[in-house]
Amino acid sequence: MKTLWSKKARALTPYVAGEQPKLDNIVKLNTNENAYPPSPKVFEAIHAVRALQKYPPPDADAFRAAAAEFCGVGERNVFCANGSDEALALCFQAFFDPDEPVACPEVTYSFYRVWAQLYDIPLYSVPLKADWTIDVQAMCGCRNAVFANPNAPTGCVMSLEEIEQIARSTPGVVIVDEAYIAFGGKTALPLLDRHENIVIVRTLSKSHALAGMRAGYVVAHEQLICALQTVKDSFNSYPIDSVAQAAAAAALADRAYYEKTAGKIVATRERTVRALTEMGAEVLPSGANFIFVRCADAKKTFLQLRERGIIVRYFDSVLTRDFLRVTIGTDEQMERFLAAFQEINGR
Amino acid sequence: MKTLWSKKARALTPYVAGEQPKLDNIVKLNTNENAYPPSPKVFEAIHAVRALQKYPPPDADAFRAAAAEFCGVGERNVFCANGSDEALALCFQAFFDPDEPVACPEVTYSFYRVWAQLYDIPLYSVPLKADWTIDVQAMCGCRNAVFANPNAPTGCVMSLEEIEQIARSTPGVVIVDEAYIAFGGKTALPLLDRHENIVIVRTLSKSHALAGMRAGYVVAHEQLICALQTVKDSFNSYPIDSVAQAAAAAALADRAYYEKTAGKIVATRERTVRALTEMGAEVLPSGANFIFVRCADAKKTFLQLRERGIIVRYFDSVLTRDFLRVTIGTDEQMERFLAAFQEINGR
Repeated sequence: MKTLWSKKARALTPYVAGEQPKLDNIVKLNTNENAYPPSPKVFEAIHAVRALQKYPPPDADAFRAAAAEFCGVGERNVFCANGSDEALALCFQAFFDPDEPVACPEVTYSFYRVWAQLYDIPLYSVPLKADWTIDVQAMCGCRNAVFANPNAPTGCVMSLEEIEQIARSTPGVVIVDEAYIAFGGKTALPLLDRHENIVIVRTLSKSHALAGMRAGYVVAHEQLICALQTVKDSFNSYPIDSVAQAAAAAALADRAYYEKTAGKIVATRERTVRALTEMGAEVLPSGANFIFVRCADAKKTFLQLRERGIIVRYFDSVLTRDFLRVTIGTDEQMERFLAAFQEINGR
Repeated sequence: MKTLWSKKARALTPYVAGEQPKLDNIVKLNTNENAYPPSPKVFEAIHAVRALQKYPPPDADAFRAAAAEFCGVGERNVFCANGSDEALALCFQAFFDPDEPVACPEVTYSFYRVWAQLYDIPLYSVPLKADWTIDVQAMCGCRNAVFANPNAPTGCVMSLEEIEQIARSTPGVVIVDEAYIAFGGKTALPLLDRHENIVIVRTLSKSHALAGMRAGYVVAHEQLICALQTVKDSFNSYPIDSVAQAAAAAALADRAYYEKTAGKIVATRERTVRALTEMGAEVLPSGANFIFVRCADAKKTFLQLRERGIIVRYFDSVLTRDFLRVTIGTDEQMERFLAAFQEINGR
């Protein structure tokens, strides 16, 4: 039957998302979901949606307006998508060409590699520096660039000066994936006026606790937003349903709730890092809602945490196999994690 | 700034969806939405969704199970997507190759042409017969084939014998787009056992009044479903949000409601066709929730209907410009349409 697959489908190695275990009473710290539920206003907005027999607004007007307001930009500078994954996939199609190399950190969100494969885009893989930060010098000079700030799964942040350096030395588009910007790091939004080639991609999955709702957006020069709309309208006219549009708009409008929950997560992260450091563990400096923790035997620790009902993420590759990526949950969840981590590592 | 667009983006001519006018008190008969709201069970299911901070099940388990039950097939024969548009786009990537021609009716859902352009698939365009039905003989013999049954915008249906003839003479995949199968025509589901190359694509937009919710699915041999999963997991891990999954599962489970509303729409269609025929208008035989009506001056009729607050669809191309596509609304909406149509056409 594989003879009926396209050559492309036969050649793909899909992205593997973090497990969504169907177990009760687990501490789920493996997919960087928000530790808190979304704003109560989100549920009010969802319950108010009625005319589901009608197609949604194709350009997600209310969501788009709320994202523009949230970012302090014009609506024409915003493109909405079915999560930042769809946004990024559309960016790869809209801005990257098969014959033009794209600079990309060697250790980063591993989906970039999969989209490159899907759309035949050559990635120029840039090794991280010894301190696990992105090598800004080495990211410069390709036709295009893509990276996450804060980076994943390290959590390390890049300064605005460094982002500007990449934007200046990249003639094509520089995609800055700000999936985790709510929890640290400086947004590249103020750079958009000076650098028309910067494309900022965001998601509400982590920052606004809407992973279940699939809402992401892009902020960029309006001519680049037009390219995204062209590709989207050649793929799926309405990728964001009416309920998701209402939920996303409501979440973005409740800035006080967003700031409160993001602040709580940052405080819990700092406490967790202090506790781990006191145990003698090495934790990379994180600006995200997760931490990257070095372990004597990461795989063993991963499995033993799992036996105790605590699910973290372990990436079994040469570069990352000494680390665990641990999402920052509530204080109570992190207490359970810390106790188990200490027990397993016998400190 | 267009220099920052990819070559692909510069070459695309996007699909143009039917207008979603922001006017009050209009009769909207232009995008083949269902005349009735979805089952009340859909709203119950939506209101029960809570944990939006968690990612949805990536393979939409409950939706998938409900679709399998609805179609009387195994869950492994079902793939769920963000509407049938996303399903079709993924099918083009999973089954079609740039060097292999795909037979496609010249007059059909115009998005097929856009996906072909997006993925560099050569379409072999098959003119309709004089009676506006698909030329089955001429559809045979390409590597792959795609068509809609009932076809759009004509509404004409194809028999199972004709579909089998295409499947037998097509070595690759035959995509049967059953977006409108709820309102007439025979489903190709019983052919799947005999023809492993048939891929059936469906949407809940029309049949289950869920256009606003973006839910579609594919039924095919499990090896072909695997190809779709591979492409989907290389594009967007979770294209269907938690609320849409719950809504789709609830809609599919309420078969009595589905049968009742589809039956009402078919009855209204037959009444509308009779009335138009009595006025002397020509209507193609329709198995869909729309009709294709020939007009002396279709564009003028379209514009004059619009002035009266009745929005239908007019396709301004050489082959279709003598027709209007009119969605079947409620009896009351069709009375308004018929009165206006008669007035405009002075009969």
